[in-house]
Amino acid sequence: MRLLELVILGVGLLAVIVLSVDHIEREMRHLLRAVIWGVTVIFLVEYLVRLWVAPENPFYEQDPPGKARLHWAVSLPGLIHLLAVTPALMFLAGYTITGADAASVFCILWILKLGLHAPAFSTLARVVSNERAPITSVLILFAILLMMAATAAHMLEAEKQPEQFGSLPGAMWWAVVTLTTTGYGDVVPVTAAGRVIGAMLMIAGIAVLALMTGILATGFAQEERRREYLRVWEQVSRVPLFASLGVVTVSEIVGKLRTRYYPPRINVVRRNAPGDSMFFISEGEVEVHLPAGGSVKLEQGAFFGEMSLLDRQPRSATVTTTKPTTLLVLYASDFYEIASHIPKLAEAVEAEARRRSEENRARQADHGKKR
Amino acid sequence: MRLLELVILGVGLLAVIVLSVDHIEREMRHLLRAVIWGVTVIFLVEYLVRLWVAPENPFYEQDPPGKARLHWAVSLPGLIHLLAVTPALMFLAGYTITGADAASVFCILWILKLGLHAPAFSTLARVVSNERAPITSVLILFAILLMMAATAAHMLEAEKQPEQFGSLPGAMWWAVVTLTTTGYGDVVPVTAAGRVIGAMLMIAGIAVLALMTGILATGFAQEERRREYLRVWEQVSRVPLFASLGVVTVSEIVGKLRTRYYPPRINVVRRNAPGDSMFFISEGEVEVHLPAGGSVKLEQGAFFGEMSLLDRQPRSATVTTTKPTTLLVLYASDFYEIASHIPKLAEAVEAEARRRSEENRARQADHGKKR
Amino acid sequence: MRLLELVILGVGLLAVIVLSVDHIEREMRHLLRAVIWGVTVIFLVEYLVRLWVAPENPFYEQDPPGKARLHWAVSLPGLIHLLAVTPALMFLAGYTITGADAASVFCILWILKLGLHAPAFSTLARVVSNERAPITSVLILFAILLMMAATAAHMLEAEKQPEQFGSLPGAMWWAVVTLTTTGYGDVVPVTAAGRVIGAMLMIAGIAVLALMTGILATGFAQEERRREYLRVWEQVSRVPLFASLGVVTVSEIVGKLRTRYYPPRINVVRRNAPGDSMFFISEGEVEVHLPAGGSVKLEQGAFFGEMSLLDRQPRSATVTTTKPTTLLVLYASDFYEIASHIPKLAEAVEAEARRRSEENRARQADHGKKR
Amino acid sequence: MRLLELVILGVGLLAVIVLSVDHIEREMRHLLRAVIWGVTVIFLVEYLVRLWVAPENPFYEQDPPGKARLHWAVSLPGLIHLLAVTPALMFLAGYTITGADAASVFCILWILKLGLHAPAFSTLARVVSNERAPITSVLILFAILLMMAATAAHMLEAEKQPEQFGSLPGAMWWAVVTLTTTGYGDVVPVTAAGRVIGAMLMIAGIAVLALMTGILATGFAQEERRREYLRVWEQVSRVPLFASLGVVTVSEIVGKLRTRYYPPRINVVRRNAPGDSMFFISEGEVEVHLPAGGSVKLEQGAFFGEMSLLDRQPRSATVTTTKPTTLLVLYASDFYEIASHIPKLAEAVEAEARRRSEENRARQADHGKKR
Repeated sequence: MRLLELVILGVGLLAVIVLSVDHIEREMRHLLRAVIWGVTVIFLVEYLVRLWVAPENPFYEQDPPGKARLHWAVSLPGLIHLLAVTPALMFLAGYTITGADAASVFCILWILKLGLHAPAFSTLARVVSNERAPITSVLILFAILLMMAATAAHMLEAEKQPEQFGSLPGAMWWAVVTLTTTGYGDVVPVTAAGRVIGAMLMIAGIAVLALMTGILATGFAQEERRREYLRVWEQVSRVPLFASLGVVTVSEIVGKLRTRYYPPRINVVRRNAPGDSMFFISEGEVEVHLPAGGSVKLEQGAFFGEMSLLDRQPRSATVTTTKPTTLLVLYASDFYEIASHIPKLAEAVEAEARRRSEENRARQADHGKKR
Repeated sequence: MRLLELVILGVGLLAVIVLSVDHIEREMRHLLRAVIWGVTVIFLVEYLVRLWVAPENPFYEQDPPGKARLHWAVSLPGLIHLLAVTPALMFLAGYTITGADAASVFCILWILKLGLHAPAFSTLARVVSNERAPITSVLILFAILLMMAATAAHMLEAEKQPEQFGSLPGAMWWAVVTLTTTGYGDVVPVTAAGRVIGAMLMIAGIAVLALMTGILATGFAQEERRREYLRVWEQVSRVPLFASLGVVTVSEIVGKLRTRYYPPRINVVRRNAPGDSMFFISEGEVEVHLPAGGSVKLEQGAFFGEMSLLDRQPRSATVTTTKPTTLLVLYASDFYEIASHIPKLAEAVEAEARRRSEENRARQADHGKKR
Repeated sequence: MRLLELVILGVGLLAVIVLSVDHIEREMRHLLRAVIWGVTVIFLVEYLVRLWVAPENPFYEQDPPGKARLHWAVSLPGLIHLLAVTPALMFLAGYTITGADAASVFCILWILKLGLHAPAFSTLARVVSNERAPITSVLILFAILLMMAATAAHMLEAEKQPEQFGSLPGAMWWAVVTLTTTGYGDVVPVTAAGRVIGAMLMIAGIAVLALMTGILATGFAQEERRREYLRVWEQVSRVPLFASLGVVTVSEIVGKLRTRYYPPRINVVRRNAPGDSMFFISEGEVEVHLPAGGSVKLEQGAFFGEMSLLDRQPRSATVTTTKPTTLLVLYASDFYEIASHIPKLAEAVEAEARRRSEENRARQADHGKKR
Repeated sequence: MRLLELVILGVGLLAVIVLSVDHIEREMRHLLRAVIWGVTVIFLVEYLVRLWVAPENPFYEQDPPGKARLHWAVSLPGLIHLLAVTPALMFLAGYTITGADAASVFCILWILKLGLHAPAFSTLARVVSNERAPITSVLILFAILLMMAATAAHMLEAEKQPEQFGSLPGAMWWAVVTLTTTGYGDVVPVTAAGRVIGAMLMIAGIAVLALMTGILATGFAQEERRREYLRVWEQVSRVPLFASLGVVTVSEIVGKLRTRYYPPRINVVRRNAPGDSMFFISEGEVEVHLPAGGSVKLEQGAFFGEMSLLDRQPRSATVTTTKPTTLLVLYASDFYEIASHIPKLAEAVEAEARRRSEENRARQADHGKKR
């Protein structure tokens, strides 16, 4: 469905882009307009459908249906989808789609739908939001350098190049083109002093770019660590053994996990070796060689070896990495240290241990009967 | 007040910029001049006011009023505000505001006031100051590459392009435009050897930019860590329980804090669950559901749960995150480990515990009486 | 062999490049064609040889010879080598090498062989793969900014510059040139509003570049840490004392290593001083001054002092750094802490200790006999 | 002396630059030549002096004087200084300094002397050396993208722009100008397909720049950490109490140091408060308020409070920060933990403690006598 949506979007955008070129044949022009109309209708239908199913979104489960739809309509995705159908609504209201200009309006609005498909936009948005103070300072610094250089260039170059540097806006155009190191070359200082200002501005442009990059790089690294922590936290909460524990306990367990990297084709655990740790697969893949034969592959998000936290029985199977893998290891000793001061955890562990040994006794009893 | 200041600044700058454009009508020109005059007068009044209230600034509380005013006048903000009113003073001293050049002078000086509003300028300044050694080395490397490429290009291209490359300054202009990857295109090597030098210079420009960015990124990350540490330190010092402790003790507590990230709508603590940790809100927001009903929202800088450090009583309320939140957790066990070798801390804790239990007894006595 | 391969590649590429220039003499042209033919034949032979020896590659040791060759032929290196000989095969199939265009095709295909020589391509590939989500988001952001600016510029500038901005593709060309801060200058907005859009686009270009750099820098740092961990892990596994231990035990030892930096000409250990740690050379070089006289140099990957883990005998030699060196130190206390809960490790240590003391007794017995 | 050297260098370079401009008056030309000659002579004398004093350099203390001079002459600084006087030697050998070209040769050679003054060149050099594998890979990637785009553009654009794209070198010039985002604009693709190749190349240029920056940023951060560790290590070795200890012990102490940040005007220690930690000033400044009156300022590299490691006597003075300061704290408990397994350290501490208490007894005896 997502791929279909992207394809329709792409086709629509392409039609708009081609339509803007002047020397297109008449029939092609009709075809392109038909395509654009088709896409518009599809988006209109899509909007109505999305509006109808809005109450099913878990985000709005507390609201009554009408209010949920309203919430969605004014949310960012809702507004983007609405903007994309505005041209269709305008037409229905009486405006006709003629000329390249009108078609271009479609273009701006449809491209925003592409943003809804971006996997990590929220991460980028958070990074910019976290670092908004230093980013604002860099932009202010940029503005100061721009104005000072533009004014200096204006005073120095206005005589020789009255058309380009004769007014401050003209000098500001040169300054922003130079400060961003874009450097069109349509406006260039020719006096010696003007060129000195220009050289200093170019070097300052490099410094501003470097500062901005440094700020965003730091913010991004921090955001990645937070997302990684939350990801691991969710992974740990999914272990049935830990599911009933509170947030702080899960945090404790997460804090004790140790990161280990393994190349492929390494035996992480061997059958019948003593077991004293539990593993979470953070990245990569392992293969569990079942005693009966055959094997099972476990991927990112899975875990294995949790029995060793309950008792120190030998491992029941050999587990081998198939790809470069990152495992998070929880040692039984660390686990019991946590359990020693969180009674609820110790209880959950004992309950699970009793449950499993009863299961085992029942299974052995069955086996005994079978024989 | 700050917004008003920014608006006046913006209006003044806009007036100066528009005034510099040649083809402006006469009446508009008069209006613009009037605006510029008005802003100048406002800034002059502002300067006098700031000078008058300087002694009230906590920075100068040890100085007598006259000396405080002098200190402010020669400080960086004071000088910037003075520079902004210099044109007005010049006029009063006899010079008249005529011509675009004079108005431009206003422009340079007023834009500096914008810098005083930048939230994180001091951070950026510290970063540059901390990394001044490698930054200087990169600039020297830049100068070496510039001169060597300029000289080589001068020798190789002087014949074919005497006007652009015939002198070293001309070749240096090309070199700085190329090394900063600005690339106007007004001066371009045409010989094969010259183009090879040019290509090497462009690649070197990328390397210099990359080095500069790497240096500033590292310095910025370090400065962020320091500011974060100081921020947490201030946050901890504001807890009444810790307020009377010395700096080194507060540092100890800060050192034991653990960073935990929570997504929204998670119960951090549940009412009546055993409590053994105290929480500081580093970022985000939580909602405390009061037993009586209603709720209180706590934001960044607040703390909760400190009672559990004094006694292990069950939690009195449920606290839920409303946004993605970062909490700093202080475990009672860590706290008591610190207290064990800082007698003053243990005393403060016992005093506070006695105080609170007397308060509770008094409250219960009141309740008893009321019944 | 690798250098020879690079030289042949370089000669071939150079021949193709020179051949494309128009004003080359006839004899030179024949020579260049001969060179290109020669290189083609060499690459063809090389491909056949590589195909033949494919089964000897450890990567394919489980497959029968035919299947191994097939696996190699469809692997990335195999395909690159095949592409490089495609022109030769085409010729043998009937197409002749004439004209600059055909020769250029060689060029594209041969340059790919250069990529196989790059030492850290897999690292770069992993970095891009790890960060593919935020990278995709930045590229989508890039596309959105591009289209929105192109459409706006198209609407604003189409009248004044119908040839450049008259169609959306033309405006998109200007937008991508500006957003990447390349700034040719062949298409430049001239209206005030168009220039404002342009200025905003240039600043956005800086931001996009900064974001992309931040993402790749973070990903690269993470990948470097993983490779460093794996490198140390391999280094530790090579110690004969640890070779028979399982993966988890080696990980334990790696976790206890402490990184220490030493400037040159520092005595790391002195003869007859008590020994309680083992050293791995992570980087740099040390010199072991043998008791008998003379010295041995140890480099990255080597280790020394492991005897002190078995018994606390005095050091048998002085070890000095000759260059700035990074050593990883394993303290005996940490080692025994690990051994205390991994029986297998303790056994291996005791076995090694017994073996060495028997060796020493034998040696002393020999010495006694000699006297 | 260093400043004088820089001034002479600057004057010489300036003279060379100005001399290259054509329209300079005769007398000025003579003056400039005289200046250049003067600087040449000064550099020649400087070289001979440096050669003479080479044996006094601690780097060569093991070599006999002649060999030391030879070592210096072929070292990097020695060669740079030699290159700077080569023109003078050439003249003495018969060549005359005429024409702008000859003077330019001076320029290249003198600018290298500037590099010897760069404070952190060795750090930058180490960074590039450490990361040479990924840097090489990025450069190879750059070459591959360059050649592939150049070839494609050559094939697509050769018809319409035979002069610019007709040969591969011409297309390569466009490719390198575009890939580095310099973008002169002298060579620009005009066909639709050529522009698509160009757009892809520009985006690839951003990616290459981002990768290169990420690599250098990571390498720089790592190098900063190493230098910081060595700096602290040297600082700790200078404490008289630790001076006689071996390298590994100092490393132990360095490992136990904790970094603490303090804003200005904070009492780090108060007189008569119990003391249990020692402080090293990593950055900033503190003021020690002596009991007798007056105060002493301690800066980066100094330490205070070491007495508290020997006995837990109350602090003898109050110490306050005067600037934002970073202190490294060594707790007595950590110190004694190290001493417990390094007998030599415990002995040094006891010896020092005995020495100081004997000093104190002697001082008190003196005081007693005076009364």
